[in-house]
Amino acid sequence: MPKNDNNISMSVIKRLPRYYRFLGNLKKNGIDRISSKELSARMGLTASQIRQDLNCFGGFGQQGYGYNVSQLYKEIGTILGVNNAHPTIIIGMGNLGKAIATHMQFASGGFDIIGLFDCQKVGVKVNGKAILNSANLAEFCEENKPQVAIICVPEESAAGIVSTLVKCGVTNFWNFSHYDIVANYPEAVCENVHLSDSLMTLNYQITHKDD
Amino acid sequence: MPKNDNNISMSVIKRLPRYYRFLGNLKKNGIDRISSKELSARMGLTASQIRQDLNCFGGFGQQGYGYNVSQLYKEIGTILGVNNAHPTIIIGMGNLGKAIATHMQFASGGFDIIGLFDCQKVGVKVNGKAILNSANLAEFCEENKPQVAIICVPEESAAGIVSTLVKCGVTNFWNFSHYDIVANYPEAVCENVHLSDSLMTLNYQITHKDD
Repeated sequence: MPKNDNNISMSVIKRLPRYYRFLGNLKKNGIDRISSKELSARMGLTASQIRQDLNCFGGFGQQGYGYNVSQLYKEIGTILGVNNAHPTIIIGMGNLGKAIATHMQFASGGFDIIGLFDCQKVGVKVNGKAILNSANLAEFCEENKPQVAIICVPEESAAGIVSTLVKCGVTNFWNFSHYDIVANYPEAVCENVHLSDSLMTLNYQITHKDD
Repeated sequence: MPKNDNNISMSVIKRLPRYYRFLGNLKKNGIDRISSKELSARMGLTASQIRQDLNCFGGFGQQGYGYNVSQLYKEIGTILGVNNAHPTIIIGMGNLGKAIATHMQFASGGFDIIGLFDCQKVGVKVNGKAILNSANLAEFCEENKPQVAIICVPEESAAGIVSTLVKCGVTNFWNFSHYDIVANYPEAVCENVHLSDSLMTLNYQITHKDD
């Protein structure tokens, strides 16, 4: 059983999806068992780092045997919450929203997409679902109680959308806008994806490669 | 003048785009000057953290005055490399590639998109540019010398694409696939965007909110 994970640092938590991905690949390739040494070589982490990380959740390894791939994969998946089906809506059906709606494997990640919203393109189907009108967002939330909102609108529309959502009890966000949700709603759970920050970090590394 | 930035840690570098974003917003709102205290309140960092971060690049602040917003914005932009125009190609024109090609402000970020590639949809225009055939990627690289490639193909296609690109001298990557470029090409500069990892981190936080 995983330990109580109250005090796990964000850096450990942020590595868990990587473990899950790597173990999923091993499983797909028919590998049943792996030593922390092998796992570390493949992941570019030290074996002691891996042992430490997994110890945060109660271990899983066995001296002299290593890790049982399927079991560890399943356990990490459970810790991450992949067996959930959080009712989730996506707001903003521009290119980005469309990409997110069609590209991501929400079901196997623990999310259930129950509504797509845009202030235009109402009725157009994306991945089999008709786009709903953002004007009816509050009404939809009252009725369908989504738990998670994916924010794919520009920053200038995000404040209003998030305010509506929080009022309706939606406080979990996957945020692609630059609107700072947690600064405005400290009680919110929010994972930000700032693509432009990532691109700039790349630029920095290219620009300063030969320093 | 910025200090030589050879030994700046990745965590400082990863904060620079955020400073740049915040300062850009201040500038847009007509704010000329800001104290490190005010900046820290807006950014959710401590004032001492901000001073430390900016000291890595030679300071910029003035005792009793604070920071000159325009100047700091410009200096951080220069450090990040926004005045470059790295010739850049995007490979993979599915929903994600299309979103990236149309959504991102490449020019103001220091990148110049010179080619879009896909193995299908050849000739279809995205953001005014006709999609080129991935089969001609090597030839295009010989001729046009792109410096940066944005990888928007699935993991199973990424290995072959990246191998071709590295052979043609392209070693800077913005990678949306799960293919581990640096593990295979340690000389490569690579910024990974693992959207599914981000989504799983969100799931973890939602699942364990009440622990």
